[in-house]
Amino acid sequence: MTTTRVPQEERTRAMRQRLLDACVECLVERGWSGTSTTLVSQRAGVSRGAQLHHFPTKNDLVVAAVSHLAEVRGRELAAAAASVPQGARRTRAVLGMLADHFTGPVFTAALELWVAARTDEQLHAAVAPLEQRVGRETHRMTVELLGVDESRPGARELVQATLDLVRGLGLANTIRDDRARRGRILDQWARTLDLALQEPS
Amino acid sequence: MTTTRVPQEERTRAMRQRLLDACVECLVERGWSGTSTTLVSQRAGVSRGAQLHHFPTKNDLVVAAVSHLAEVRGRELAAAAASVPQGARRTRAVLGMLADHFTGPVFTAALELWVAARTDEQLHAAVAPLEQRVGRETHRMTVELLGVDESRPGARELVQATLDLVRGLGLANTIRDDRARRGRILDQWARTLDLALQEPS
Repeated sequence: MTTTRVPQEERTRAMRQRLLDACVECLVERGWSGTSTTLVSQRAGVSRGAQLHHFPTKNDLVVAAVSHLAEVRGRELAAAAASVPQGARRTRAVLGMLADHFTGPVFTAALELWVAARTDEQLHAAVAPLEQRVGRETHRMTVELLGVDESRPGARELVQATLDLVRGLGLANTIRDDRARRGRILDQWARTLDLALQEPS
Repeated sequence: MTTTRVPQEERTRAMRQRLLDACVECLVERGWSGTSTTLVSQRAGVSRGAQLHHFPTKNDLVVAAVSHLAEVRGRELAAAAASVPQGARRTRAVLGMLADHFTGPVFTAALELWVAARTDEQLHAAVAPLEQRVGRETHRMTVELLGVDESRPGARELVQATLDLVRGLGLANTIRDDRARRGRILDQWARTLDLALQEPS
């Protein structure tokens, strides 16, 4: 049997990843107030000592998790975007993909951080710029996916409205799973959006 | 000088109100995790003993505050609805009124409760039915304000989408004050909504 010695640097990176993933999972399952560094280290299978070495405080851990989460969201959206089918029902498919993201666990973790950041200055300083970046990237991606000409009056605002709509649907979903209602709303929004983006300006 | 003896019942009711108002203010300023029964009783100017008499636990207090908040939201919306002007810009004015509500402190307090309720079963049991009631009332009010004929295909979904849109705008506003962006989105949505509700079905 051959044992491969994993370089220290690689092991450090992997442990860091595990801690950040565990932090995001904890946010989804227990919420912000139920997330503690002890719980995260247990879940990641990392000793308290090693965890404290990487992230001395809850805030250090969470700020790193915010950045990690922004990356995960970006990757998740890009992967979903790549698999949206072309064709007549393209708009509805794009909306479905966005709604899936905004009702999924990665959005839920982000929601916990946003709301906590509202009353925590240090967390807000980490969350706000990343949120702005994710927002810009999601907007650009949506414009591309829908083939929107943003030079047309109102087109930019309709894309923004679409993203605010799915964010609102995501928030509603945290209280009550309402997939059927959401589906009907997206059906109608797709029709309205297609008409509005085609109408002579 | 004449002193009027306020009946015990009335004083009890007033103290209860003060505690609930203080709880809502605390949620807005400190968030769910920063809200404690001690802080609420201090803010309300009510002794710990009297507070514990009314609400023995944080959950008793918060569940009562949820119900109180639903009433306050209903009253705030009804009052705002009554002052929306008639005329050509009616739709935009209704959207502005809704957006003002969903970016105001009363929505912020509700948001804190929703997110906390996501991972707290007892709180969820209190929040979910009230949220549903407020949602239904807001929907009915919006239908009336916009004069929407819900028997038309898609009309109901467009009203629902409008409410999810303003909810999404409210959530975005907690991270970043973006009044100008919001105004442009609502301008465009008012135009699109008017066209969509008028188009032959």
